[in-house]
Amino acid sequence: MSNEINYQEVINDIYRDVSDKENIGQAASYIPELAKIDPEKFGVCLKTVENQEFGVGDWQTKFSIQSIAKVLSLSLTYKILGDSIWDRVGVEPSGNPFNSLIQLETDHGIPRNPLINGGAMVICDLLISHTENACAEFLQFIRKICSNSDINYSTAIAESEKSVGYRNIALCNFIKSFDNIKNPPNEVLDFYFHMCSIEMTCQELARTFMFLVDDNFKTRENEPVLNISQAKRINAIMQTCGFYDESGEFSFKVGLPGKSGVGGGIIAVHPGKYSIAVWSPKLNNKGNSYRGMNFLESFTTKTKLSIF
Amino acid sequence: MSNEINYQEVINDIYRDVSDKENIGQAASYIPELAKIDPEKFGVCLKTVENQEFGVGDWQTKFSIQSIAKVLSLSLTYKILGDSIWDRVGVEPSGNPFNSLIQLETDHGIPRNPLINGGAMVICDLLISHTENACAEFLQFIRKICSNSDINYSTAIAESEKSVGYRNIALCNFIKSFDNIKNPPNEVLDFYFHMCSIEMTCQELARTFMFLVDDNFKTRENEPVLNISQAKRINAIMQTCGFYDESGEFSFKVGLPGKSGVGGGIIAVHPGKYSIAVWSPKLNNKGNSYRGMNFLESFTTKTKLSIF
Amino acid sequence: MSNEINYQEVINDIYRDVSDKENIGQAASYIPELAKIDPEKFGVCLKTVENQEFGVGDWQTKFSIQSIAKVLSLSLTYKILGDSIWDRVGVEPSGNPFNSLIQLETDHGIPRNPLINGGAMVICDLLISHTENACAEFLQFIRKICSNSDINYSTAIAESEKSVGYRNIALCNFIKSFDNIKNPPNEVLDFYFHMCSIEMTCQELARTFMFLVDDNFKTRENEPVLNISQAKRINAIMQTCGFYDESGEFSFKVGLPGKSGVGGGIIAVHPGKYSIAVWSPKLNNKGNSYRGMNFLESFTTKTKLSIF
Amino acid sequence: MSNEINYQEVINDIYRDVSDKENIGQAASYIPELAKIDPEKFGVCLKTVENQEFGVGDWQTKFSIQSIAKVLSLSLTYKILGDSIWDRVGVEPSGNPFNSLIQLETDHGIPRNPLINGGAMVICDLLISHTENACAEFLQFIRKICSNSDINYSTAIAESEKSVGYRNIALCNFIKSFDNIKNPPNEVLDFYFHMCSIEMTCQELARTFMFLVDDNFKTRENEPVLNISQAKRINAIMQTCGFYDESGEFSFKVGLPGKSGVGGGIIAVHPGKYSIAVWSPKLNNKGNSYRGMNFLESFTTKTKLSIF
Repeated sequence: MSNEINYQEVINDIYRDVSDKENIGQAASYIPELAKIDPEKFGVCLKTVENQEFGVGDWQTKFSIQSIAKVLSLSLTYKILGDSIWDRVGVEPSGNPFNSLIQLETDHGIPRNPLINGGAMVICDLLISHTENACAEFLQFIRKICSNSDINYSTAIAESEKSVGYRNIALCNFIKSFDNIKNPPNEVLDFYFHMCSIEMTCQELARTFMFLVDDNFKTRENEPVLNISQAKRINAIMQTCGFYDESGEFSFKVGLPGKSGVGGGIIAVHPGKYSIAVWSPKLNNKGNSYRGMNFLESFTTKTKLSIF
Repeated sequence: MSNEINYQEVINDIYRDVSDKENIGQAASYIPELAKIDPEKFGVCLKTVENQEFGVGDWQTKFSIQSIAKVLSLSLTYKILGDSIWDRVGVEPSGNPFNSLIQLETDHGIPRNPLINGGAMVICDLLISHTENACAEFLQFIRKICSNSDINYSTAIAESEKSVGYRNIALCNFIKSFDNIKNPPNEVLDFYFHMCSIEMTCQELARTFMFLVDDNFKTRENEPVLNISQAKRINAIMQTCGFYDESGEFSFKVGLPGKSGVGGGIIAVHPGKYSIAVWSPKLNNKGNSYRGMNFLESFTTKTKLSIF
Repeated sequence: MSNEINYQEVINDIYRDVSDKENIGQAASYIPELAKIDPEKFGVCLKTVENQEFGVGDWQTKFSIQSIAKVLSLSLTYKILGDSIWDRVGVEPSGNPFNSLIQLETDHGIPRNPLINGGAMVICDLLISHTENACAEFLQFIRKICSNSDINYSTAIAESEKSVGYRNIALCNFIKSFDNIKNPPNEVLDFYFHMCSIEMTCQELARTFMFLVDDNFKTRENEPVLNISQAKRINAIMQTCGFYDESGEFSFKVGLPGKSGVGGGIIAVHPGKYSIAVWSPKLNNKGNSYRGMNFLESFTTKTKLSIF
Repeated sequence: MSNEINYQEVINDIYRDVSDKENIGQAASYIPELAKIDPEKFGVCLKTVENQEFGVGDWQTKFSIQSIAKVLSLSLTYKILGDSIWDRVGVEPSGNPFNSLIQLETDHGIPRNPLINGGAMVICDLLISHTENACAEFLQFIRKICSNSDINYSTAIAESEKSVGYRNIALCNFIKSFDNIKNPPNEVLDFYFHMCSIEMTCQELARTFMFLVDDNFKTRENEPVLNISQAKRINAIMQTCGFYDESGEFSFKVGLPGKSGVGGGIIAVHPGKYSIAVWSPKLNNKGNSYRGMNFLESFTTKTKLSIF
């Protein structure tokens, strides 16, 4: 990255500016456990391909990464099964809210992309079918690419979500009715809710996503995660589908591939340059972190480091 | 761009490979005038930010750029009116075919983005309202950014399209019924069909789109076209919305912002590096040039020059 | 009909009750000419198969029958062409507002039934194709079954409607794009707007619809209009499709086949027993006459004369 | 009924005619237990308000009445709760297949009518909330109106259906996500699948539905079932919504209120005159008994006894 920019200063400045403005929106309350989080938490971590790290605010506090985990389960499945996964799920933006059943009906059970709930369930189903123990292997995968054994599921959150997740239960059974889920819906949902319950800090998230930034990325055991073409394709999917029906807006204003979660986290990557993780629980009306979106828009505007 | 790549050789090789394979698909036949074009035409032009040009095949033959012109009318309108245009049209991918009326009904007449037909009509309507003579000023705008006075409308194609354009007439009147078209539908349609009838060669297209590649782009009269932020946003919209319901696929396989037209043309840009125009009339089942898509997928794979 | 009921008294009583309550809703204002009508007009005419007539209020004042005319153009077309018309239009309720384009897109241009706008346009198109002069022959048909030469189009209303009928223009061109309109859209729309501009009194309406009440109905020239099976089928279509997305509600509360128009008119028939026409311009939020619905609900409740 | 008609002869004749023609369609196979039924079974029972009964074929063989039971659970719930049930479910035809989730999404969890699956589940939910033991009380209700204690659930079919009923599980959880199901989805589904597993003969069905034919109907214990207005309203709902997206077609061709089930049964009623039950397992492409539809169309055509 251009060495004339003082990144610590830049993120401090933007952090202060964003913090000074009213924190608008609603933290996710439909999951009882998530509703307990302090909605004023706010953290940022930037990690460059030159291995520098810059943090501000609550950047070392764990939070529920929720849907951000979908990129990781997709990556693991893509690594294991290759392009055959695209028979079961598309790569097109949906133009609809994240849990819409309408498109599934029109598309006969093939979810539009792997980052909406239905698509992520199909990916979970594939992982269950092609691993001994999907839950264990998925966790191990994240720990490896993050070089950190202190990454865990939150059973409390997984169970909290399952207890009220009627829409997701509907979604999974609906896809099953089209035969695009092969395992019992309960098993798929169980893994799905666990996957979304992973907890990380901004720092851990920024580190974890370096495999999508650095073409030469290797784990501590010196293994690559995805080949270059696969990594590019994951980035392309995040670019067009990472923010539900605000994906175009994010692309328009931020100009980076990224993914958000209802816990208030957002990860974005600039291929070849850096990854950046932001966390602030209050969500805008599209379900994406209000301050997270604002922070990233300011960041790419000020640094002129979007991909476009 | 990296000077170790011999671009002329690369495009020649891919051109030959793609030409050797069967040319699948159907040239657009719904517009009588377009149906007359030789479906085996095939041309490519690459232009770099260092001002080099590389061409192969029918790269200096004029063809109907059709929907590619929507990026140009959007750019002119954005230049004139700034961000106020986003009150009238969105920036989200539609997830639906280019001429779908379903989403317009749900969205109360606000088209999802300016690159689907309905959105482009709203842009035409804005240009009519804010210029003396939209048709003349739009043509002048293209001639300026292309530095070429030999760019023209094809009245034959415009009229041919109008004579059978029932779906577009429906679309324009439908948006008018939501009051998101301010001028008489006939006037808007007339400009719209003319806009789509612009004829250019691959070389002219590649030159024309350099204003979205080069941050320092100026016309021959030394005027900038868009500011940097605006150009980035146009690129972001092309990235997420440029290929109708194959936008995700294009992003996934090619990894560049771009726009296709039913005449068989595709323009793609790599911000900071190059623009590339391809033309081959046969279209795949999503309405995008079959060979054009194949050519560009090979090109970014071989050169490793996607934005991701 | 059961001779112990004093119909004049019944309709007088209900008329007074309904008049005493607040007149809720909005008269149609989107058609400039219709907006001029006094919204407090209120008339009723009941005509029995024994040829008795009972009227109250403004029952001899002309008003624009609007969509009620669709039953008459359907009847004429059915008479001329027989069951072949069902290749071009369905008989299912739409479950959607009267001018929805969504279903047309899903159904590839085949309107759900002949009483929604799109279906009525297809019927108009058929009449144009199979008559010398659809406008003249349609008027003659109504005059015959009403035994009244003083029935006319309102050119002022037809033109008023055409000048603002963007949704209908969209609809007609949309169906044309599926090739389910054979004549030029402008010609079809012209006849369609004329058809809807027919003006009648409640008395004339009640008389006109006796061909759907009386199995032995003949015109003054001693000609039957439809055969018994055809008349039953028209009644069945009115029952399921006559009130747009309030058809179920009307069936539920009134229990008679019928048809409403945005001019505030409603015709209902009890096969074998009577026809009844009501007119009151203020419409509920589904586009049906507020007082008309209330009057008819009371009427069938009090007389116990629904078909169920 | 007109005493000049020899009903036994009429139904024998039509039965023979329909039997002579090829039996087209597919018996429901998605429920393993239903797939075991002989698809060539064919029975008819007509019962008049004068208490005459006419039967032909397999009219005294039990079969799974499936969705026909929805009219009975609706009637019991309407009897217990009155018009308050319409806050939770509509009375409009859906214009969509019986298990569509699309409309539920648009309508925020309020099913269009109580005869589509989602609506019937809401009715089941109401019964569970307002009875001690919904399963027991529902069975008792049917036995009473049928004056027959030999009516039972088929646990084998209920369980068979539950084991593969992913679409219905999706539906119930989806409505629950809109909070229009108050009890646990599993409990509602359990009752729902039991309800649909009721087995009856054509004779029992025809007898059971006399409460919708005869204004003076009383059970053996001399209790009325519904008041006249309620019975008429149930009939109106059957008329517009009884045959999924073939309701208009049934109304058009048969002209009676009725309800079909995927077991191949159809019940139809002529208010004030008769009820008629038909059973033949092969279904047309809309999910309604092929021979059942044909039989009833011939029956009302020949006897001229439709309601229109």
